[in-house]
Amino acid sequence: MQTIKLNLKRRSYNIIVGSNIIKFLGEYIAKLNIGRDAYIITNASIKNKYGKALNKAIKQSGFTVRFKLVPDAEESKSIGIVSSVIKDIVRYDKKKRIFIVAFGGGVIGDLAGFIASIYKRGVPYIQVPTTLLAQVDSSIGGKTAVDLIQGKNLVGAFYQPRLVFSDVAILKTLSLKQLQSGLAEVIKYGIIKDWQLFAYLEKKYQDIFSLKEPTLEFIVTRCSSIKAKIVQQDEREEKGVRTILNFGHTIGHALEVAGNYKVYNHGEAIALGMLVASDLSKKLKFINNETLQKIENLIKAVGLPTKIQKVSIADIIEAHYRDKKFIGKKSKFVLLENIGMVKVVEKIPPKIIREALRKRF
Amino acid sequence: MQTIKLNLKRRSYNIIVGSNIIKFLGEYIAKLNIGRDAYIITNASIKNKYGKALNKAIKQSGFTVRFKLVPDAEESKSIGIVSSVIKDIVRYDKKKRIFIVAFGGGVIGDLAGFIASIYKRGVPYIQVPTTLLAQVDSSIGGKTAVDLIQGKNLVGAFYQPRLVFSDVAILKTLSLKQLQSGLAEVIKYGIIKDWQLFAYLEKKYQDIFSLKEPTLEFIVTRCSSIKAKIVQQDEREEKGVRTILNFGHTIGHALEVAGNYKVYNHGEAIALGMLVASDLSKKLKFINNETLQKIENLIKAVGLPTKIQKVSIADIIEAHYRDKKFIGKKSKFVLLENIGMVKVVEKIPPKIIREALRKRF
Repeated sequence: MQTIKLNLKRRSYNIIVGSNIIKFLGEYIAKLNIGRDAYIITNASIKNKYGKALNKAIKQSGFTVRFKLVPDAEESKSIGIVSSVIKDIVRYDKKKRIFIVAFGGGVIGDLAGFIASIYKRGVPYIQVPTTLLAQVDSSIGGKTAVDLIQGKNLVGAFYQPRLVFSDVAILKTLSLKQLQSGLAEVIKYGIIKDWQLFAYLEKKYQDIFSLKEPTLEFIVTRCSSIKAKIVQQDEREEKGVRTILNFGHTIGHALEVAGNYKVYNHGEAIALGMLVASDLSKKLKFINNETLQKIENLIKAVGLPTKIQKVSIADIIEAHYRDKKFIGKKSKFVLLENIGMVKVVEKIPPKIIREALRKRF
Repeated sequence: MQTIKLNLKRRSYNIIVGSNIIKFLGEYIAKLNIGRDAYIITNASIKNKYGKALNKAIKQSGFTVRFKLVPDAEESKSIGIVSSVIKDIVRYDKKKRIFIVAFGGGVIGDLAGFIASIYKRGVPYIQVPTTLLAQVDSSIGGKTAVDLIQGKNLVGAFYQPRLVFSDVAILKTLSLKQLQSGLAEVIKYGIIKDWQLFAYLEKKYQDIFSLKEPTLEFIVTRCSSIKAKIVQQDEREEKGVRTILNFGHTIGHALEVAGNYKVYNHGEAIALGMLVASDLSKKLKFINNETLQKIENLIKAVGLPTKIQKVSIADIIEAHYRDKKFIGKKSKFVLLENIGMVKVVEKIPPKIIREALRKRF
């Protein structure tokens, strides 16, 4: 079992990573002194698989437990669901000592974290992520949000959890698609900050698919450490440090939007976005062809796409310029200098972006 | 014109107090570098009276301006209104350089501040309070919230404005009721922190009702300074410092709830709450009868109630024990040691509270 400390002064917390550790969760919560009544936001499928174990783990440390099921889809990230969940919380929270547990993937983490941030101007919450994507990325760092019809994550808050508790044994029931989606973010960490992790993935990616626990624990720990270090330097994305986490996300988001979130899942879109960013880096002579090829090979090896299909360049470009991360139409990309080293480059002409995109068709 | 600085490191801001200063607002905003597109949340009545002046003041500094009208009542503090206003903001915010202006009383300040806190995980906002209550209290300190059917202010955030801009000339169009409601909070500041302010009010309260601008400017400045000092010591109400601002509010809130927010407005409820707290202080021998009498006299002089009507003791007590500020049924009161000096007292037996209440019937 590994403990990573995320240092944010009064808002510091631990990230615990291990295998078959869910049974210890209650003890960890007890140390935090955050309340007595656990309100667990999850979905039916996760509850069916792990609800009993979680319930037991938490109750045996003297907490009361209530499960709240939300639909298992992006649709859960709506103001309507926020409102109805909070009404349910009010009914449960008679003794004013509630805390919230986000038990699920990125959708549930985002939703539960946002609810925790606004209920009574903030109550404690903990993240118990159940997907690889959530364990290595979305559960860490306090970015919470829900969607509007006009766009994803338009409403949210920066609000840190009090604990992130990642049991890699839970990853065993993920679908291949979910595993691959998470791997896109894992590869991202290697590229932006950790060439050793990248090299490890090149050698060991098959161990991930055979769900070897030491391998899973190693990559989740490694990625969590990188994310924690970045977040503690730039909690609210104000200093530009956190920007590098968006490697692959500029075009990745545009791809998701252009495909109306149906053509590509997040991991696939990010994989393609990382390739376009690598193509751009090569085009601008920041990296050589060998580096580009290594990245493409790894992405291909884990079964993620390397070519764009079913959306047009025009749609991608349009979605890109509508992206909320834009201010005054300055195009901002995280580009590669080497594996493990990136930099932010602004004002790349649309023509160059279009040419880089064309390569992926 | 007075400037009070509220120190919260990176979240510091100025509180500007003056008479007929609205015309300078654009210049003040320009210095903040918070965006170019002003989204002004207000109601029809305020817009009718001051919309033109505000529009001109802001536009002349080069900003674009859009007014959004919300109903002039507590009903505006709902998740439904939050959701519909944010949808409107998205339509306006094409260039991603929006900031929000709360132009109104406490309801609008709470609503607009909360919207600013969650739209894109936080955009800048400024407070231009138009009631005495909002100028001396609710516009300062970053407490924002909306209501649920189950209770007021159950959903919200601590989110500081970038500027509070109080033009006391605007107070001239307040109704007598609104003025009195604000005066309850002004008296509160005198009692909890400033015996000189209290003495000033005893002498000069008639100047307030004749709307003498130097008097208004003086009291708004004085109260704003007190509030700023308290907030900067305890931004998120975690250290107990901010608790003293709840003087009169324990029973005050219970009275509002017991009367279903129809029998008493906030100021009236707080006035009665301050009297009950003073009665309790006398009962526990913290203050003498003369001090109690002074407080009662001032409250009576400004036209606020000194006796409770139309709600029962049982209803008040019940509402009190349901109050969200309660944890585990420990009754917590801010009590008086002298005018200008208070302390927090816990675990006052229900019997004593009931006896104190009885005096006000």
